[in-house]
Amino acid sequence: MSLHNIKVIAFDADDTLWVNETFFRRAEEEFCDLLEAYLPRKEAHKLLFEVEMQNLPLYGYGIKPFTLSLIEAAIKITDGNLHTDLLEALINIGKQMLQEPVKLIDGIDRTLEELSKKYKLVMATKGDLLDQERKLIKSGLEKYFHHIEIVSDKTEKQYRKLVKHLDIKEEEFLMVGNSLKSDILPVLNIGAHAFHIPFHTTWVHEMVDEEVKHPNFRSFVKATELLEIL
Amino acid sequence: MSLHNIKVIAFDADDTLWVNETFFRRAEEEFCDLLEAYLPRKEAHKLLFEVEMQNLPLYGYGIKPFTLSLIEAAIKITDGNLHTDLLEALINIGKQMLQEPVKLIDGIDRTLEELSKKYKLVMATKGDLLDQERKLIKSGLEKYFHHIEIVSDKTEKQYRKLVKHLDIKEEEFLMVGNSLKSDILPVLNIGAHAFHIPFHTTWVHEMVDEEVKHPNFRSFVKATELLEIL
Repeated sequence: MSLHNIKVIAFDADDTLWVNETFFRRAEEEFCDLLEAYLPRKEAHKLLFEVEMQNLPLYGYGIKPFTLSLIEAAIKITDGNLHTDLLEALINIGKQMLQEPVKLIDGIDRTLEELSKKYKLVMATKGDLLDQERKLIKSGLEKYFHHIEIVSDKTEKQYRKLVKHLDIKEEEFLMVGNSLKSDILPVLNIGAHAFHIPFHTTWVHEMVDEEVKHPNFRSFVKATELLEIL
Repeated sequence: MSLHNIKVIAFDADDTLWVNETFFRRAEEEFCDLLEAYLPRKEAHKLLFEVEMQNLPLYGYGIKPFTLSLIEAAIKITDGNLHTDLLEALINIGKQMLQEPVKLIDGIDRTLEELSKKYKLVMATKGDLLDQERKLIKSGLEKYFHHIEIVSDKTEKQYRKLVKHLDIKEEEFLMVGNSLKSDILPVLNIGAHAFHIPFHTTWVHEMVDEEVKHPNFRSFVKATELLEIL
């Protein structure tokens, strides 16, 4: 409830610090382009999502799991006759994504600069460490963060471990992120604070239907609005 | 020099806590079996290693990068005519590896149990977080570790960050691992302690030619030997 207890602020990375989902959406469109001769786009989208969900427990999140799912979905769509040039095109979609320039979310640089003077800031992500480190360095935001916290999934259990690892109490922890499912709901459930800054695009897997009402919850349109209350 | 300064002991995971390299070697043999009709085994091995090294800066370490490299090497070896059943077999090699049972290194359980009574233990790995967490849980060793430290690569810079993050001095840190290149040399170079317990198989990329002589270095044959001096 009381914001002046807060000691550590954790920021989600993808779509909170920098644009990410946009690249996945574009990659999916490229996938549908490449396979349009075999299957209508809408069905190709659906099949890809099914393969991703099947692979999620084994592969986890990130671009390399996505690339492997692109390949597996294409095998299904082409009924086991995937041409090698198509396969190479899919591998290259993944490699391209790993090399995208980092595009910062509006106002995030100034927001972090100000907040880092008053709080310990960490970056908390379930993405791939190498990929996230690369983006953090490219972004120029590294100097504001005490360290990176990588979690395999953003569940209540993982947030409890994170808070314990930071040596603070739940009510001293604030999470800021774009995903209600990953950055907000589990955090509120352990008694910590959670601030939501939605990104215009959300992955189906991260969508939730409920409206959040909680004393430790607030929602913002822009990152810089955080500076008005923190 | 003096071992009674040590406060935190970090253990490497793969081939220090549990068998790992053996599964990669077996996967490479399976890869060579599958492609023997196209290229002699020795050359297939060599080409795979080249592809892995090319992909390392972009993909990092772990089974998913390895799987993507298997596919890329197979495209080269089949001269762009990779049959889909062969492609599926390669994807399945990777999925199989992600689901291998965990085989503990001899004596590691008792060693960790004893050491955890006197020191803070952490697991320090450059592998994939989801995969390493899964192995840690399956292994039953989780209870001995304070937390997992994932690094994108085991360089002096990364070890300095790790020691800073642990809030200790270099001389209070001891790393135990099987790789001279990753677990020993960079650690000695920052002024910390490093103990080597070789595994019978070493990946070519992890091999070093030099013999290590350093006051903070010791080498052991079995994990339980650590208990005689710590």
